Amino acid sequence: MSYCLGMRLKAGMVFVSDSRTNAGVDSVATFRKSFVFDGAPDRVIVILTAGNLAITQSVISLLEERLGSKAASRSLYKAKSMYDVARMVGQTLREVFEMDGAHLKSHGADFVASLIVGGQIKDRRMRLFNVYAAGNFIEATDETPYFQIGETKYGKPIIERVITPETSLEEAVKCALVSFDSTIKSNISVALPIDVVVVPADGCRASIRYRVTDEDPYFKSLRRTWGEGLRKIFSQLPEPEWVLNPTKD
Amino acid sequence: MSYCLGMRLKAGMVFVSDSRTNAGVDSVATFRKSFVFDGAPDRVIVILTAGNLAITQSVISLLEERLGSKAASRSLYKAKSMYDVARMVGQTLREVFEMDGAHLKSHGADFVASLIVGGQIKDRRMRLFNVYAAGNFIEATDETPYFQIGETKYGKPIIERVITPETSLEEAVKCALVSFDSTIKSNISVALPIDVVVVPADGCRASIRYRVTDEDPYFKSLRRTWGEGLRKIFSQLPEPEWVLNPTKD
Repeated sequence: MSYCLGMRLKAGMVFVSDSRTNAGVDSVATFRKSFVFDGAPDRVIVILTAGNLAITQSVISLLEERLGSKAASRSLYKAKSMYDVARMVGQTLREVFEMDGAHLKSHGADFVASLIVGGQIKDRRMRLFNVYAAGNFIEATDETPYFQIGETKYGKPIIERVITPETSLEEAVKCALVSFDSTIKSNISVALPIDVVVVPADGCRASIRYRVTDEDPYFKSLRRTWGEGLRKIFSQLPEPEWVLNPTKD
Repeated sequence: MSYCLGMRLKAGMVFVSDSRTNAGVDSVATFRKSFVFDGAPDRVIVILTAGNLAITQSVISLLEERLGSKAASRSLYKAKSMYDVARMVGQTLREVFEMDGAHLKSHGADFVASLIVGGQIKDRRMRLFNVYAAGNFIEATDETPYFQIGETKYGKPIIERVITPETSLEEAVKCALVSFDSTIKSNISVALPIDVVVVPADGCRASIRYRVTDEDPYFKSLRRTWGEGLRKIFSQLPEPEWVLNPTKD
């Protein structure tokens, strides 16, 4: 499994991914799952990947190889819109499905892959997409300004409670790290280091590309303070009267 | 989906289940998923069910029909130990598989069912089991004093942080309700009312059988206070310095 999270806020976009991959519990490794495409001055594109590593690496390799292409339908740097970028990523995923889908199936493996694709092209708006294994996709809106892929459930409640389009970039990163902490605590298929990319609105550049390791002092303190805080507010909640003083019915 | 939670603490056992069943999003209904067997004075047995409702109802019906049987291998009230009770529940599940498994398969449906089985027989210890669809089972220990079945992930982080064998019954109920709140917020296949059963240690009786509805004043206040508390401690956590003051690398 993996866990990746992308958010599109008024202040900009935040992309966070873990880096554990595993094929069974005895084949565990660290691979980066966030990719920043910023080789053209007019745009920044970030892709996060979850699912079968061979599939998602193929997609990224093909996208990278074609960056120099002059065709607007082939190069992320030539695409006219972020919609076209998402379409291109989906199309590339379909190519990989054409190459590998039947072979995977003959080995009993499903074609499992999903990608978060976000970014901005100069003078256009920031957009964030969730690309499914079939190559189709949905786009984030103000009602649902974030996407999660991979092992999404453990870390969802805090995001649901905190994130709105008005959330600041630093609060969004803090929320993402709390969400990753909950997930890492509950599921060994998600693990540090965590890669964080922050793209402020309208700059078309990533202002931050930061790797959080298990030695990171901020993350260590966040985990401890959050855990202590949770236990404290939990202990302050009143206990149910009907358990303290049960009446026989 | 469903969400059920059973805990075995030093002070006793706590069983909590939601009551939503759905076959697709347009066929939603309310069914009780917790069953208390307390018709014999020397024991109390509680069963929580998740999965295909036709399967789990069949299991419960067969177990109920056989309560009057004189055979120790047929009646929950004659079983010599809680281990035998778990074995009997697993065996009954296998009977249902024999009857329905192939038919379900021919309609493209998997045989999905899991049960939490717990209780105590006089002068013996409290025991808690997680019975799988195959009819085999595992038992809770002091290291892992609880089991969840169904939609388990959203509500796991708070349990992981709070529950130990030393947790009091009222704290355990409170934690369970917080865990259900997080799950209900994130997943429409889990819903109120919530059924709570509390079995204090060594009494061999349920002291509490309580149904939490959406009008329940304690639960309403718990949800609000917990949500506010979470947002408060979240806002008190320091923001990452490297987002507030990024330095170009």
